[in-house]
This record gives sequence, structure tokens and C-alpha cells, in this order.
Amino acid sequence: MTETSLGGLDAGLVRQTLLDAADMAAAMTLPRFRSALAVDNKEAVGFDPVTEADRQAELAIRELIGKRFPDHSIVGEEWEDKDGTTPFAWIIDPIDGTRAFITGVPVWGTLIGLTVGGKAVAGLMAQPFTGEVYLSLPGDAGYYRDGQHLPLKTSGVTALNKAKMTATSPDIFELSGTTGVWNALRKSVLTTRYGLDCYGYALLAAGHIDLVAEAALKNVDICPLIPLIQNAGGVITTWDGGPAEQGGNCVAAATPELHAAALAILGGRLV
Amino acid sequence: MTETSLGGLDAGLVRQTLLDAADMAAAMTLPRFRSALAVDNKEAVGFDPVTEADRQAELAIRELIGKRFPDHSIVGEEWEDKDGTTPFAWIIDPIDGTRAFITGVPVWGTLIGLTVGGKAVAGLMAQPFTGEVYLSLPGDAGYYRDGQHLPLKTSGVTALNKAKMTATSPDIFELSGTTGVWNALRKSVLTTRYGLDCYGYALLAAGHIDLVAEAALKNVDICPLIPLIQNAGGVITTWDGGPAEQGGNCVAAATPELHAAALAILGGRLV
Repeated sequence: MTETSLGGLDAGLVRQTLLDAADMAAAMTLPRFRSALAVDNKEAVGFDPVTEADRQAELAIRELIGKRFPDHSIVGEEWEDKDGTTPFAWIIDPIDGTRAFITGVPVWGTLIGLTVGGKAVAGLMAQPFTGEVYLSLPGDAGYYRDGQHLPLKTSGVTALNKAKMTATSPDIFELSGTTGVWNALRKSVLTTRYGLDCYGYALLAAGHIDLVAEAALKNVDICPLIPLIQNAGGVITTWDGGPAEQGGNCVAAATPELHAAALAILGGRLV
Repeated sequence: MTETSLGGLDAGLVRQTLLDAADMAAAMTLPRFRSALAVDNKEAVGFDPVTEADRQAELAIRELIGKRFPDHSIVGEEWEDKDGTTPFAWIIDPIDGTRAFITGVPVWGTLIGLTVGGKAVAGLMAQPFTGEVYLSLPGDAGYYRDGQHLPLKTSGVTALNKAKMTATSPDIFELSGTTGVWNALRKSVLTTRYGLDCYGYALLAAGHIDLVAEAALKNVDICPLIPLIQNAGGVITTWDGGPAEQGGNCVAAATPELHAAALAILGGRLV
């Protein structure tokens, strides 16, 4: 873990900030999980619930980061961007998977990431109901639960027909007009599961899932997960092979070989 | 909780047997969850993984039940049926959601149910990673975790356009030729999630999900969940309104009104 790759920031402080911020968020989210909640509709059309938990958790994270790093930018899903005066930006999704949250399914997560000059260098996914934390800093990616610590390591799967794949929902491909390539990809893999949001990327980093493909992601949905995947041995890019930090159509794979095979289909070159 | 509705069996003993059997199963499943495992293919065509955890957990449950109730029938997913000499049958699915299990997602569950004369009267769903137990006996349905005990109560949702729905995967409708009615149903509801297996029914009993529709279920997939849903205030039948104990195409709803509305579509009367 080098300070250089963190742009000169202290790795220990970044790590502690990620963990403390996740704890602050959990205090806002967990008591509201599986409780009766007023659910607002963020969009007039469609169903995109935002809960009070979401908003309060992001405020708590912003306050903590703002105190420790007053000149850093902060980008979150629920509140306006804060522009800092340095190359550092913290990317926050307080509850990734709000639909999982409101249906009582413990596969939502709190995502907090750090970028330096637009490149994701550190990140965390925390699931407070199960007590899981997936955390990465340069050269390090780990799983933490109940005092247990395991290194994160992607599977060695290189072929599509051996790959266990996940995506949040087939609807995201329908809505973004990419059902054709999605269907081509899922016919090439061993099995496909839906319904995991950020949890799918965490399980990919941990070696249980081999491939995640999704469409129309926001930067906050994916940016904090990039270091987890890369430092566990995986590859994550957009469907055209570019950096995934800004979201869009993204694909994460356990190995470079599997990533290349998926990209050949998702890029439309084999359809 | 009456002994009559349990066919004369002692309710406390049935309850303790369900809990003990779930503990026996957890000792077989949990250490193998998220570990590298040899995965057999149950079917030559398709992908239906069976793990050693599955087989060992069912053996452990069978042994326990066989000792306490030697004249009861036992029906399980992994081993041959045992024919008893009484109207009592225990229905076991040691790992419902084997795909969730092998992809590291803690929404699989151990299902154990009791039928009297073919009617489901008691049942349990246990998720050992999260430590959740959903348990029902006549007149009682409860959620247990970390010393916490909450009564299970379905939501009051009566209209399809307010309903949060789940199903294991769109594939089950594709494979059973029922994609048409499934699409009609999902266009009528507020939101649809995939990927939950038995966990979806448990969350329905707990009031977080309002509707579950699935096709081509086996009896072991659904029978142990029936008492949970019914004793929490919900309704579960096949798509033609018959009893769900034998599996097939099933629908579970939070209220009789919601059930009737879903049945009108699934029965093909509104398509």
C-alpha cells in the first residue's frame, strides 16, 4: 500500500475514514431496515424509492469526510456535489440497492470510494445487516466480518461457459435498449442470477461470482467498487473497454481472459 | 396452537424438532458456504448444482426426525422418500436456492415442514449465515434472530399497482412456457425483484414483499413455507386456486384481495 498511489494521502487515515464513515452510515440505515418507512418517489415516471435512511446516511458520511478532508470534493447520490480544491474526490452511495432495502433483502450496501484525479484508488462496500465489510486500498483487498479477515481474490474462471454471472435486473437492459447483447451474453455463460446490486461486485471480488454486466450505471453505483475488483485480481471496464469510473454500461470479470470474452459480445462484435 | 390441528402431535415437540433439525443442517451447510466445493450436475442438460452440503444436511435432518418420529414419512430433495405408517410426513429441502448457495448469496434457506394427511401444518425457513429463523405452527408465525422475536404479519397491500413482487428468475417462466402471463403480471405491479428463492416467501410473511409468483415448483420447495404465509395472514395457492402443497405453479400474496387480483392474471382470464 503506497502513499504515492493515494496521491500522498496517508493510507491508514483513508482506511479508517472509510470504516468510520461506514459505521456512521450503518447507524442511519440499519434501524430503518425492515421498518415501515415513508418511501418517496424520486422520479415521476417509474419507481425509484429514496428513503430517509438514504439521505441521513449520506449526510453523516459527508460530515465525517468534510471534517477530516475539508479541501476534498464529495460526490453523492442524494445531495449536491461539493467541489474541493484538490484532486481528491469521495464518491458516496449511502444505500446502493434501495429496492433491496425496501423489500427487506440484505444485499444492499453502503458504498464509499476515493478517487485521485478521477481514478478510483480506494473503496468500501459495507452490508450492516450481515455485518460484512469489503475494503480495498492500493495493493490490498479484504473481507471483514465478526473479527474474521480474509483476502479478496477473484476466481480463476477464464471461459464464459464456466462463468456464474449476475446483474441487478433484466429491466436495466430493456430500459437501455441493450437486451440483444445481454441475451447473447447470458446464453454464453453457465448461469445467471439477478437481484444483487453492489453485492454482486463484492462477491465477484471474493471469488464466488465470475462476471457482472450492467447497463446505465451512475458513477456512485460503481466507482467505489472498482478498487475492490482490481485489487482482488479482476478487471472492470465499460463495454467498450474504457475506464468505469463514470459509470454507464459496465462489465466486471474475474480474469482478463473472461473479461475479453465478455467484451467481445457486449461490444457487439460477436452478435 | 392446538394439538388437534397437528393431528394430535405435541406442538412443543414439533417446534423443537424443527429448530433442532435446522441446527443440525446448519452445521453441515454453513462451513461449506463460500468455500471451494465440488459441484455436481444433477441433470445432464442445464445447470442444477447439488453440493455435498445439501446431501449431508438432509441426512442429518432425516436422522433426527427418524429417531423422534419413527413412524412418520420423510420426503426430501436429495434422498429417496421414506414411507411411514401414519398420516404425518416431514418435507425437507436442505438448501433451497442451491444457486444462491454456490454464488455466495445468503438468501438460500433450509426448509423443513410437516404435513398431516397431505396438508401443510407447520414449517420453518432458516438462513444460517444471517442467523434468521422464520417458524410457524398452527396459530403462530414468528421471526427469530439474535434473541429477537417478532410476530410475522403480511403487509396490508391489496392492489397490484402497490405490490412489490418477487420470483426466483424469469427463466422459470421461460422454461415452463408461462412468460406471457408472467409479463402481464409484472406489468401490473409496482416493482419486481428476482433471485430470492425461499427467502422471498419468508419476506412476504414478514410484510416486506407483497407478492411471489413462481412456476414449476417441487413440493419440497414450497410445502414448508405454506404455514408461514397462511399464519402470517397471507394466501398461497396454485395458479388455478388449488392447494400448493404439491408445488407446480404457485402464487403467494399478502392479502386475499391481492391474491385474487394476481390469480385473475395468472389463471389466464385477463390475458
